Amino acid sequence: MRQHTLTLTVSCPDRVGIVARVASFIAGYAGWISEANHHSDASTRQFFMRNVILAESVPFGPEEFRARFAPIASEFSMDWRLSDSAQQRRVLILVSRHDHCLVDLLHRWRDGDLSCNVVGVISNHDALRSYVEWHGVPYHYVPVLPESREQHFERLRELLEVARAEVIVLARYMQILPPDLCVRYRARIINIHHGFLPSFTGAAPYQQAFDRGVKLIGATCHYVTEQLDQGPIIEQDVIRIDHSDTVQDLIHYGKDIERQVLSRGVRYHLEDRVLLNGAKTVVFR
Amino acid sequence: MRQHTLTLTVSCPDRVGIVARVASFIAGYAGWISEANHHSDASTRQFFMRNVILAESVPFGPEEFRARFAPIASEFSMDWRLSDSAQQRRVLILVSRHDHCLVDLLHRWRDGDLSCNVVGVISNHDALRSYVEWHGVPYHYVPVLPESREQHFERLRELLEVARAEVIVLARYMQILPPDLCVRYRARIINIHHGFLPSFTGAAPYQQAFDRGVKLIGATCHYVTEQLDQGPIIEQDVIRIDHSDTVQDLIHYGKDIERQVLSRGVRYHLEDRVLLNGAKTVVFR
Amino acid sequence: MRQHTLTLTVSCPDRVGIVARVASFIAGYAGWISEANHHSDASTRQFFMRNVILAESVPFGPEEFRARFAPIASEFSMDWRLSDSAQQRRVLILVSRHDHCLVDLLHRWRDGDLSCNVVGVISNHDALRSYVEWHGVPYHYVPVLPESREQHFERLRELLEVARAEVIVLARYMQILPPDLCVRYRARIINIHHGFLPSFTGAAPYQQAFDRGVKLIGATCHYVTEQLDQGPIIEQDVIRIDHSDTVQDLIHYGKDIERQVLSRGVRYHLEDRVLLNGAKTVVFR
Amino acid sequence: MRQHTLTLTVSCPDRVGIVARVASFIAGYAGWISEANHHSDASTRQFFMRNVILAESVPFGPEEFRARFAPIASEFSMDWRLSDSAQQRRVLILVSRHDHCLVDLLHRWRDGDLSCNVVGVISNHDALRSYVEWHGVPYHYVPVLPESREQHFERLRELLEVARAEVIVLARYMQILPPDLCVRYRARIINIHHGFLPSFTGAAPYQQAFDRGVKLIGATCHYVTEQLDQGPIIEQDVIRIDHSDTVQDLIHYGKDIERQVLSRGVRYHLEDRVLLNGAKTVVFR
Repeated sequence: MRQHTLTLTVSCPDRVGIVARVASFIAGYAGWISEANHHSDASTRQFFMRNVILAESVPFGPEEFRARFAPIASEFSMDWRLSDSAQQRRVLILVSRHDHCLVDLLHRWRDGDLSCNVVGVISNHDALRSYVEWHGVPYHYVPVLPESREQHFERLRELLEVARAEVIVLARYMQILPPDLCVRYRARIINIHHGFLPSFTGAAPYQQAFDRGVKLIGATCHYVTEQLDQGPIIEQDVIRIDHSDTVQDLIHYGKDIERQVLSRGVRYHLEDRVLLNGAKTVVFR
Repeated sequence: MRQHTLTLTVSCPDRVGIVARVASFIAGYAGWISEANHHSDASTRQFFMRNVILAESVPFGPEEFRARFAPIASEFSMDWRLSDSAQQRRVLILVSRHDHCLVDLLHRWRDGDLSCNVVGVISNHDALRSYVEWHGVPYHYVPVLPESREQHFERLRELLEVARAEVIVLARYMQILPPDLCVRYRARIINIHHGFLPSFTGAAPYQQAFDRGVKLIGATCHYVTEQLDQGPIIEQDVIRIDHSDTVQDLIHYGKDIERQVLSRGVRYHLEDRVLLNGAKTVVFR
Repeated sequence: MRQHTLTLTVSCPDRVGIVARVASFIAGYAGWISEANHHSDASTRQFFMRNVILAESVPFGPEEFRARFAPIASEFSMDWRLSDSAQQRRVLILVSRHDHCLVDLLHRWRDGDLSCNVVGVISNHDALRSYVEWHGVPYHYVPVLPESREQHFERLRELLEVARAEVIVLARYMQILPPDLCVRYRARIINIHHGFLPSFTGAAPYQQAFDRGVKLIGATCHYVTEQLDQGPIIEQDVIRIDHSDTVQDLIHYGKDIERQVLSRGVRYHLEDRVLLNGAKTVVFR
Repeated sequence: MRQHTLTLTVSCPDRVGIVARVASFIAGYAGWISEANHHSDASTRQFFMRNVILAESVPFGPEEFRARFAPIASEFSMDWRLSDSAQQRRVLILVSRHDHCLVDLLHRWRDGDLSCNVVGVISNHDALRSYVEWHGVPYHYVPVLPESREQHFERLRELLEVARAEVIVLARYMQILPPDLCVRYRARIINIHHGFLPSFTGAAPYQQAFDRGVKLIGATCHYVTEQLDQGPIIEQDVIRIDHSDTVQDLIHYGKDIERQVLSRGVRYHLEDRVLLNGAKTVVFR
């Protein structure tokens, strides 16, 4: 059902004529634009654009598109990318003991909601092997022992390379990634934090929320950077709680919001809806 | 603070090259686009576009813009409009006994949230005269008597003409407008219905909602047509209720959602964010 | 982690002294009330109450509790029930082709969110057998052929009896149940309707919503009665859509709201939070 | 329309028999309870209760009710209060330059949504005098000069005493109250903070939110204590923003959520729905 599309995303210094130039380029080859989004950031004078083009409408493939578009990109100093929906990105999911986000992601993937290729699940627990394998996805059990954290990450690096992972989803993976991985996969590691950032960073955010007596709790999907819980925010949401809810209740109800926020964030990323704007994001929903 | 802008809205049959043509036209005069929205409707093969252009960036005024753009509009069979933010639309508000929407609209207008010229308030009650006049807005008391409904509407027609009203807001005005007014001001009469359409049309929607035992109640902002409560929907929203709420509570809580939905709908209209798509709307938020 | 509790739910004609009588009865045996909810319905003069009592705090079991409470119930003409959390209800899930609600229910059940005993899944498709069986739940494939609808229901009746089902969840089961089953399991068959009732009853609610151009779509969890889509509403919710969403998008996004609304409704039912009030419900959340 | 009621609120160490004792006391005088809420806090072992009693149903007035109830209160070490709906609380509103919360509170008050006696508005600007006086409410202009802050607060103390204020609402009053006032009116000064606490305390919360790139912004209604923005939270809410919103947009849209959250918080307080639980609140909605 999904159409074969090429998605062109661009960010560049704002000036007159960008849309005209890009749209004329596409129209010049009779390219049919099915979705278009623009954003001029007045505070940074940066321009952001996303065009979804029906692949069959242009008389050449993505390689030639890129080659022909390169001069324009150069002229406007663009940071750009052309994605081909026929080339699904390779996604690796890292998970710990809590499986609600994993279950949700796998179901949405199987249901066609997430256009990607789930090439593996890595966990420091072995409990979910049969569940994951039922989906036809390889499962890697990589334990974390207090004395062997570096060993864990070493194995992780190997698995990521072997799987040729392009996107890494931390679906309640409770370990802090080493800086080299954050750099290696910059803007490609997507985490779900179980708190409404910037409140309640670090450990036990639900306990912190309970202690402060807030009336809404939330979750935050963000790109992972070397600064814990400081990466660019992709998506957030909240739910209402009240005085009758215990910390256990918050943990429980929070799962709903975590899985929704993570799956939305992952989908936005896979559909090239997220563009970096410094420490923030532009999300063309 | 608000910038002087020209807003171009277009709807036309979809085909290759519309954006390229329009964007090139604007760029050709060094026009600076501060906001752009597009929509291709796959079901009707209709294309919709909205461009906000900084007025100072183009070397001529709206009249000449229109003259120069007309050939393109003609070429693409466009239904189009160019609004000048310096020419605020003349708005007339009709209200009955309930004043919550009126109070909200007047405050937002005074606060700069609604870019328009409120040229009068017409009511079939005289209670709010001093409140409205405090805002510097003329107040017209036009009673409705069972035997004189046509007289009421005759006076209404006069006042609308004299005030040169361009937009009519029914802010809980409990009368059904005669068909000639619906036609005369097509897509320019904005009503708030105190129910979540298409549920609960007609009278006493809160009583209907109470009787059915729904768990959310809502309000609907729509353009008025000759078919009661059937016009194109601009905006809707809901709030949660529960078993402990009486009909009086629903009426009370409903006011919050009514005023929000109406003021959003009116703002979208005044900012040229609403385009008609048959019996539906495209709303570029 | 979950405590052993007895939950007493009561509805009766409202009068002075009900709470005093019931609370004194419980306190007389040193019963510890961990949760209490009351509702006086002013329109029907009916009173509703729910008390959760720690089982270990009372010196006898549920049987003796019922025997001792019966005279009070009789004195106040109560419609009442005492549930023992140690006696989990037997739940049978009926499902058709769409599996998102089923996947969600099974995960929540496995995660401890739904306190019940899932004794089987019945489907008119065979696709989900291995998925369901992975959860240790029996799977019954009961096809529906145009010429054999009665045969399908005959088999259904048998399976319900054999499984001693106490609660039936229609998790996007696209068949209309015969009247005898609606009566046999009155207020124990929970359906999810993929529309915001009372709008969009019957078939293809998302297409109806799309055609009308609503700005929010919803789902409704309700008890099944002999009148299609007319049963008492337990829970509803909505999500925002816009002009860019196709019918396929509505179907897709709707799944999220369907599974949330159904799982909340089922949880409320299993925790004895839902009391019937004529054609409506009292839901003590 | 509003009924004459007595509202009894209680907090005390939790133990068996509290509800039985209180309900029996009320039933013993044929008191009709129209609303009842209970909460057992498992973490603090504290019990909270609110009962709304129809005044006409008990054979004596609030004074005698208090005298007769005192022994029970003493027996259970209760912190308690009996409010008489016929004795409306005296409310003083403090406001600065931003008037959206004030306009909202005055309209709701005039509309019967807030059961209280608004005895005055104090502002450090003189702009809103005629608007406030139109509502029949005295307006006090008390300027704040950098060199005369103490003089401002001295005048404030006088006005509060003269007006016999029982509740003080800070409706975007941009001054930090001196500690003695925070103590004198403990749990009776209600503030609206234009950020989702505990994020974005102090000045310019919208700028902070913009800089961090959050996807939702919020407002927090809380009791004022000597620690800035640290008081017990009464109510919070959020709205969605996106990358296209400037700081000015956040300030603008934030007004909607500020006025809703403040008016809800004030209403909960006036209806005795808010009980202190250490640094947190129990809110019986």
